[in-house]
Amino acid sequence: MNYQSYAVIGTGAIGGLYGAKLQQAGAEVHFLLHSDFDHVRAHGLRVESKDGDLRVESKDGDIDLPQVNAYYRVEDMPACEVVLVALKTTQNHLLPELLPPVVKRDSLVVLLQNGLGIEDTAAAIVGSERIFGGLCFVCSTKVGPGHICHLDYGQITLAQYTADQTAAGLTGPLQCLGTDFERAGVAVTLADDLLTARWKKLVWNVPFNGLSVVLNAKTDEMIGNQHTCTLATTLMDEVLAAAKAVHQRHIPRTFIQEMLDATKHMKPYHTSMKLDYDAGRRMEVEAIFGAPLTLARQAGLAVPQLEMIYRQLKFLDERERPNI
Amino acid sequence: MNYQSYAVIGTGAIGGLYGAKLQQAGAEVHFLLHSDFDHVRAHGLRVESKDGDLRVESKDGDIDLPQVNAYYRVEDMPACEVVLVALKTTQNHLLPELLPPVVKRDSLVVLLQNGLGIEDTAAAIVGSERIFGGLCFVCSTKVGPGHICHLDYGQITLAQYTADQTAAGLTGPLQCLGTDFERAGVAVTLADDLLTARWKKLVWNVPFNGLSVVLNAKTDEMIGNQHTCTLATTLMDEVLAAAKAVHQRHIPRTFIQEMLDATKHMKPYHTSMKLDYDAGRRMEVEAIFGAPLTLARQAGLAVPQLEMIYRQLKFLDERERPNI
Repeated sequence: MNYQSYAVIGTGAIGGLYGAKLQQAGAEVHFLLHSDFDHVRAHGLRVESKDGDLRVESKDGDIDLPQVNAYYRVEDMPACEVVLVALKTTQNHLLPELLPPVVKRDSLVVLLQNGLGIEDTAAAIVGSERIFGGLCFVCSTKVGPGHICHLDYGQITLAQYTADQTAAGLTGPLQCLGTDFERAGVAVTLADDLLTARWKKLVWNVPFNGLSVVLNAKTDEMIGNQHTCTLATTLMDEVLAAAKAVHQRHIPRTFIQEMLDATKHMKPYHTSMKLDYDAGRRMEVEAIFGAPLTLARQAGLAVPQLEMIYRQLKFLDERERPNI
Repeated sequence: MNYQSYAVIGTGAIGGLYGAKLQQAGAEVHFLLHSDFDHVRAHGLRVESKDGDLRVESKDGDIDLPQVNAYYRVEDMPACEVVLVALKTTQNHLLPELLPPVVKRDSLVVLLQNGLGIEDTAAAIVGSERIFGGLCFVCSTKVGPGHICHLDYGQITLAQYTADQTAAGLTGPLQCLGTDFERAGVAVTLADDLLTARWKKLVWNVPFNGLSVVLNAKTDEMIGNQHTCTLATTLMDEVLAAAKAVHQRHIPRTFIQEMLDATKHMKPYHTSMKLDYDAGRRMEVEAIFGAPLTLARQAGLAVPQLEMIYRQLKFLDERERPNI
């Protein structure tokens, strides 16, 4: 491995899956846990993967990590060469407390999160030169304490952050990171421009995360109905227009059809936002919907359907948790 | 009464309420029933009204009609001077069978329904000179067989239809109709222009019927949240723009604030569309959303939020009843 030590901040469906894969490939991985801490310290971490039924030390199958470096307090963790942030973005306000103990002078921080504008907090803490974004195209769910079910996909797009919103290119550290993930059995795409990658991820997340909650629908139901298919397309159109107006990123319209086709071939599943909503957790409404909406407005672009799904989700989010 | 005999086609929350009031005021009323026929023939019709607790012959209170002219087959009904159509618009395709037996040469047909373009079917059957629209501003619910609960409001706006979409004015028959409803204790507004009245009704129905279903929300929840309030306003703006583009009807923007204020002062309730959805009945998506959307598009006007709520409702409607 190019980097020997990894910290996973937030050991859920994403952090648990990729952390386990990295440990299985030989990295020293340190997991920060909250509600699952006791269970994982006692029983380890269990990842049921789509690729097979084997349990122990099988790269293509399920992963049992009986020996897990599990921590309840970030202060007890060692500083690591790479810090993977896999919290929900709704908890990014905790980063000023969570990051300093686990970073050292040259640590890389990789935000395995969706949404726009989420790197700024981390960049303010560790400096903008060592921040990366990771876009996870994966169907993975935490089904019980320390128990993750990896249903489909799994690839990650990695890109380096820049403070001035330019493309960072395929830097050396980015390539080293990518190689480590590949050695862990993860399909990796290196992107020279983080913002393009983030907007492209929004093209899928905005319609399918949003409508899955508002319409209580799985991916196959949405892609199988002409009305939700049309809505997904028009929402995607607004995201493309916003990427162009806000950050001058041109995503071709053929990308919309690619996303629709990919969704047609997915195993039917509940989006992560729908799972959050059903579990009574806060939804990532601001990172995925609020940030692009605000930026589009500031750029003078009307995005009426993005605004509508944003407000519908805000209503639902606030009704569930009136005190936030 | 100016008209002695009334037929009520569709004895639900609307037809039952106004039919009972007219009968109580002295008209001869004939009720067409379907699922409630046996119950109403045996037990009569019961209307619990907001205005008081009295049961028998009280104009301001509850109404018991032990003697009801109830029919299961329209062929058994006498032709009447006035026919009140109080079906859901989703059943208007039945009018070619339902209307002919109950109309005579000079009968008036009053469509007590929401939506746009709903008079055309009736006009084709009885001629366009005798068609009226009735917009009911009422919170009324059928709570059991032959048992209607009138919770709030009750006023009706009546206007005469014209084939060429011009304002009919306050015609003689319109005034006679209005007087009959007033004698039955109903607050009546006579409108000289049916299309303006229909678009104004849509200003409320589009946001509140639509969002109540999609967000599973009562009126007080929607009006009490800043995001749904903003959404209601922008949807209303689109309806105003459509009224202007499609039919050159100018509804002032102050009307939006009037509707929001009125909603604030309503008793919290589930909209009729939400009740339909929860009961597994077809929703009036086409009359209330599809018709103005299609007309706006034909007029070259973009109404992206109206289109979005339309498609969300279509998805929900089709999922509940995949075979329609």
